[in-house]
Amino acid sequence: MAHRLSRVRGRLAALDTDAILLSSLPNIRWACGFTGSNGLLLVSAEEAFFVTDGRYTEQAQQEVDGAEVHIASDGLVSHLQQEDLLESFHRIVIQADDVTVAHHQQLKDRCSRIDWVPTSDVLTHAVGKKEDIEIRRIRRAQSLTEAVFEDVIETIEPGQTEREVAAEITYQHLRRGAEKMAFDPIVASGANGARPHARPTDRTLRAGDLVVIDMGAVLDGYVSDMTRTIAVGEPDDDAREGYQLVRTAQEAALNAARAGLTGKELDAAARDVIENAGMGNYFSHGLGHGIGLQVHEWPRVSHTVDDELPSGACVTIEPGIYVPEKGFGVRIEDIVVLQPEGCMNLTRTDKSLLTPDA
Amino acid sequence: MAHRLSRVRGRLAALDTDAILLSSLPNIRWACGFTGSNGLLLVSAEEAFFVTDGRYTEQAQQEVDGAEVHIASDGLVSHLQQEDLLESFHRIVIQADDVTVAHHQQLKDRCSRIDWVPTSDVLTHAVGKKEDIEIRRIRRAQSLTEAVFEDVIETIEPGQTEREVAAEITYQHLRRGAEKMAFDPIVASGANGARPHARPTDRTLRAGDLVVIDMGAVLDGYVSDMTRTIAVGEPDDDAREGYQLVRTAQEAALNAARAGLTGKELDAAARDVIENAGMGNYFSHGLGHGIGLQVHEWPRVSHTVDDELPSGACVTIEPGIYVPEKGFGVRIEDIVVLQPEGCMNLTRTDKSLLTPDA
Repeated sequence: MAHRLSRVRGRLAALDTDAILLSSLPNIRWACGFTGSNGLLLVSAEEAFFVTDGRYTEQAQQEVDGAEVHIASDGLVSHLQQEDLLESFHRIVIQADDVTVAHHQQLKDRCSRIDWVPTSDVLTHAVGKKEDIEIRRIRRAQSLTEAVFEDVIETIEPGQTEREVAAEITYQHLRRGAEKMAFDPIVASGANGARPHARPTDRTLRAGDLVVIDMGAVLDGYVSDMTRTIAVGEPDDDAREGYQLVRTAQEAALNAARAGLTGKELDAAARDVIENAGMGNYFSHGLGHGIGLQVHEWPRVSHTVDDELPSGACVTIEPGIYVPEKGFGVRIEDIVVLQPEGCMNLTRTDKSLLTPDA
Repeated sequence: MAHRLSRVRGRLAALDTDAILLSSLPNIRWACGFTGSNGLLLVSAEEAFFVTDGRYTEQAQQEVDGAEVHIASDGLVSHLQQEDLLESFHRIVIQADDVTVAHHQQLKDRCSRIDWVPTSDVLTHAVGKKEDIEIRRIRRAQSLTEAVFEDVIETIEPGQTEREVAAEITYQHLRRGAEKMAFDPIVASGANGARPHARPTDRTLRAGDLVVIDMGAVLDGYVSDMTRTIAVGEPDDDAREGYQLVRTAQEAALNAARAGLTGKELDAAARDVIENAGMGNYFSHGLGHGIGLQVHEWPRVSHTVDDELPSGACVTIEPGIYVPEKGFGVRIEDIVVLQPEGCMNLTRTDKSLLTPDA
């Protein structure tokens, strides 16, 4: 993992700074391996200091790679200052997207000699290009979610509530070793499926429903994210056609996906299919998002994004349509790794319209 | 709920400002009722504007009380500016503990005419004193957790893993209607119990173990939090004595608890008991914390806190000892409401040393 600290150091010159103070916990985990909930990582050309509190003494010693571990008894910033760990620096970059105004003020008050420079996207691009070991971990997390899904759809039947299905999804993930859920599962049946961010309700599944199931968990720090839309009983023709349209749009995006496209171009691969069918207004969100140690990372894949997608980025491909007038929604979501010539799909679960009680 | 906006307005004079921009989602929920994941609430003496994005159009109309709802198509701050909602203000307080440096910069860049004043603790004290309806909701959430605990301990037996017990706790909460868990349950058996913030492992419960079980969920937005330590089989004398010591310390704190004490004074009520038994070094955290829409709120109850505890504050009372040399830990935690003459305990679960398989 020491090569990751080298990548942080590689940013010093570009940012014209003596040192970088990382405060974002996912970035700290990425850079030095610490998995706890409190810490700061200070990186300069010559040195790296990691400071946390007494709860994590043992854990930090075990996990942190490449940085000197310090245990603060009275605040992390106080410790950095009291131990003279800041002494040789005049200018330190801090993470503008993570540090609160109050925290920035605390840094300025305690060490007014230092020029604290808030900077956006300190590690965004470095973290966005996944290494092989990270891709394997995302694949393992996705594989866990696929196994859970396979079991859970076996148990789904009319009369169950959305809430019961969602609870079962969480339970099975935790039993099989997930650290936690990456987000609360979405189980949105019938007309509820027409809301892209529906929360599970006490609505019971009924014959004829499409059910949008979106779930993700955390395993070894890395996140899964998969959506499948299933049918309970026989859906009507509109719902069937809607399903096939989204499936076709997703196939188009999977075929088009490769590094070097912009977010907008990849988004268009799916959106054009849905717009050409006259359903463009019902696809009300972007095509996907980066994923890794966090469930939403750079790069976004959306019609507003001109960033080029780098090789090694893991992104979701998740077109959907949400049709309140007809009382249904459909979304299908895989995770892929972008490569120069195409993409590798980390998701293997079938995409036929599944009818679990058939 | 309109009286809460009045309480926000009551802060305008003290903060010497034209308006307050709330960005903290729990504070926004408290002030106007919105439960979604994106929004800003701007409050002045005469007006209140709530702005969110298109995903929440319907939900905001249903939930928001006392503020004019706006739906932004292109960023919340842009919307405030483009609609001239900021026009009449020269000075706007923002939440320094919540706003990132990048967000503050965005405000300054977009509306440089306005003096954006980062301020800590804008609503801390107002939110800290709970209303009766909030206390009833915390009680309902706590009651749910008590019911889950009662069922789950019936199923605990030697050979189960910590992870399985934790998964069951989460599952039962979700099945019974919790929105989500407030935090990942702690199930820490035997020597793992000697770590205050242990995560569930694949360790199996063995006869003689003490097992620390700390859990909390969210119901109607409000949070529960309860810890019980149970015995699997017959614990040894050290563990039994440790349990009784913590129980006595907790009783002492419950008897002492009332509004008007400082955090330090209430902490001492339990800490003195443990120190007098020569175990002070093993009680390595504060006695408790405020609780409400968030699992950790002001006021903290700790030996470093000189704040006076207000009437109506809901706080946890959770002494513990963590004894690695003897391979056990104990923590017992209730939620109480502080009143001028004492406290009301919102937790009813028994505190005898429970042995589920007896």
